[in-house]
Amino acid sequence: MRELVDPQQRDDMNVILIERNETDADGRAVLFGRRARHVLQVLQLKEGDVLRVGILDGPLGTAEVVRIEKPETIELSCRLDRALPPRPRVDLLLALPRPKVMRRLWSPLAALGVGRIVLTAAWKVERNYFDTHILDPASYRPLLIEGLEQARDTRLPEVIVRRAFKPWVEDELDGLLPSGARLLADPGEPMRLRDVLPRSAERAALAVGPEGGWTDYEKDLLTAHGFLPFGMGSRALRTDAACVALLALAHDALGR
Amino acid sequence: MRELVDPQQRDDMNVILIERNETDADGRAVLFGRRARHVLQVLQLKEGDVLRVGILDGPLGTAEVVRIEKPETIELSCRLDRALPPRPRVDLLLALPRPKVMRRLWSPLAALGVGRIVLTAAWKVERNYFDTHILDPASYRPLLIEGLEQARDTRLPEVIVRRAFKPWVEDELDGLLPSGARLLADPGEPMRLRDVLPRSAERAALAVGPEGGWTDYEKDLLTAHGFLPFGMGSRALRTDAACVALLALAHDALGR
Repeated sequence: MRELVDPQQRDDMNVILIERNETDADGRAVLFGRRARHVLQVLQLKEGDVLRVGILDGPLGTAEVVRIEKPETIELSCRLDRALPPRPRVDLLLALPRPKVMRRLWSPLAALGVGRIVLTAAWKVERNYFDTHILDPASYRPLLIEGLEQARDTRLPEVIVRRAFKPWVEDELDGLLPSGARLLADPGEPMRLRDVLPRSAERAALAVGPEGGWTDYEKDLLTAHGFLPFGMGSRALRTDAACVALLALAHDALGR
Repeated sequence: MRELVDPQQRDDMNVILIERNETDADGRAVLFGRRARHVLQVLQLKEGDVLRVGILDGPLGTAEVVRIEKPETIELSCRLDRALPPRPRVDLLLALPRPKVMRRLWSPLAALGVGRIVLTAAWKVERNYFDTHILDPASYRPLLIEGLEQARDTRLPEVIVRRAFKPWVEDELDGLLPSGARLLADPGEPMRLRDVLPRSAERAALAVGPEGGWTDYEKDLLTAHGFLPFGMGSRALRTDAACVALLALAHDALGR
């Protein structure tokens, strides 16, 4: 199999992801557009060559290029011999950032690995952020898939959008996060993530506030629901860098 | 003092940074343009109000708005009573990413805290990446300052660009990084950053390869010069997310 990474490629597809309904019972799939161009122009594969593939929310495996029918259409024969990857052990409760920042976040969140993303309102979140197309699955799903292709994962994060903060914390939180540690990123806090994460924790849910921070009321509501505050040193980060840094720290701490 | 963070602002200026030559011996400074607009429109300060300021590569402190002379020009009287922050304890040796990715990286690198950034060639780095304006200080300095303003730091990372890999590793490395641990991010490596970082380390230099990875020759050269390989689990990340994640992990490990 050729090396799948190329410094010149725009998207970094370390695996080609295929929708379940794009394959038939025999594992045949026909690709066109972006993915076919990637196979033909970036990977420069020919008939008979083999590449890494995965079924979205399904198993990973390899595929042989059976036929190149015309420019940018290829037929694959898939052999899906590796199980669906496990659900990432970190969930994210994020006060919805401004649309430009949120758009940049989808792909790295999926690449770093997150089980569930709850996007919520907060006092310092503009209400109209919820009306932008960036919360439309047709807009964010391709960006999540880009991140999965980068990380060689197939499992789409579950995305939940809540326009009101208090009701979902009070009524839905325990159902959405039945197990695992609950951690609240709070810049002023001296304890670090690794210090507050119980050693027995199998999962962690990270609450990350808006750029202006949670209000005291919001923090109190979260801590009353079991969220343990932790800090990240004295440097304030923008939401996108903070989410990437915190997911890395949480995965690292869970893997100890 | 008012709260300096506002979710609506585009830049997140948690401190207003002033060039040394913009102040006189009495600590007077006149601001216009972006910073004056921020003070007047986002912070909505009036004469007599006080805000956080810092001198680039100098001390931090506060400033009083002495006069608002005409729209978008303000005169400040600075009181710089907090010392220059210490140099961040992490340095970064980065195979130059494609310009679009590099442009996105300057600000979060400065926000996370990095002492020195060495941008270097590698076999899988396109030569023409070095000819783009993104390596021009006039282009990247404002982006570094944005990151410092976010993180409330004043110390600009030192940026060094090397178009050849082997000569600088062999001839300059020991001078550039006279002390501290040297760590090589290598996706295939089972040991984690925290496992390989010596407990006595005061500083760490992180080597991060191009999207396609270092060649074996490059890895061998780095390990021959004391770089200890470590991994980050099975998920491949794009360079920008990888740098943010790795800087967070390195700062966290050094702070233990």
